[in-house]
Amino acid sequence: MQTDHVVTTWKKNMLFHTTNPAGELYIETSPEHGGEGTGLRPKALMLSSLTGCSALDVASLMKKMKLDVADFNIDIKAELTDEHPRYYHKVYMVFNFYGSALNEAKLQKAVDLSIEKYCGVMAMFKKFADVEVETVFHHQ
Amino acid sequence: MQTDHVVTTWKKNMLFHTTNPAGELYIETSPEHGGEGTGLRPKALMLSSLTGCSALDVASLMKKMKLDVADFNIDIKAELTDEHPRYYHKVYMVFNFYGSALNEAKLQKAVDLSIEKYCGVMAMFKKFADVEVETVFHHQ
Repeated sequence: MQTDHVVTTWKKNMLFHTTNPAGELYIETSPEHGGEGTGLRPKALMLSSLTGCSALDVASLMKKMKLDVADFNIDIKAELTDEHPRYYHKVYMVFNFYGSALNEAKLQKAVDLSIEKYCGVMAMFKKFADVEVETVFHHQ
Repeated sequence: MQTDHVVTTWKKNMLFHTTNPAGELYIETSPEHGGEGTGLRPKALMLSSLTGCSALDVASLMKKMKLDVADFNIDIKAELTDEHPRYYHKVYMVFNFYGSALNEAKLQKAVDLSIEKYCGVMAMFKKFADVEVETVFHHQ
């Protein structure tokens, strides 16, 4: 059994410090709600969590499969419900691969393995959102 | 309709850069999986997202209700499933309030409003996890 532990502490006004097993960061609300521009928006951290989790799966598989990729990113757009509490109910996630020798079949396999099997954050997102995934190959 | 947009980009090896509407951060896997100690763990960012979202609700309500609080934090422990994909199935969240004039009833009301009504990240967590919430008042 593994347990993760995080502590989020009030610093002042609408600013919070929060820990991570590997470091720390600051969280703050937007200026229109009293933020002063020091911290990150908490809800969007969910999208960094999802893309980061899946990107690490894919990077690990690229290494294992010895795939030649020059560059790689995940672009994610997530739509919030109109009603409160507002949560991400629709997610569009695009994997972009760049390179001169992209192996499309193997890269697609790596993406599919992450999305369907490995990524725990994706498993959580699937419980509350429709997640659409696209893979785009940019041959250079 | 509001849409949040994040881009997560491969930097090298097992390190990724990721954006946020208010800034940026780095994500990396643990050293035992090839990380080199530069970035944060992506899954635990979910816990910072949840505590940050709820903490901002409570800070905002403390302001509105003119509550006198010297210090305030949220301590969260989240248990991962043993089976893959591993997700947080049990969450224990403790709100700690410190001060010499804590209004327990109103602070509890602020916590309850966030947990039950305002916090969108909590609404997402409730779809995949059992969330236990406790409030502790530290009179000083």
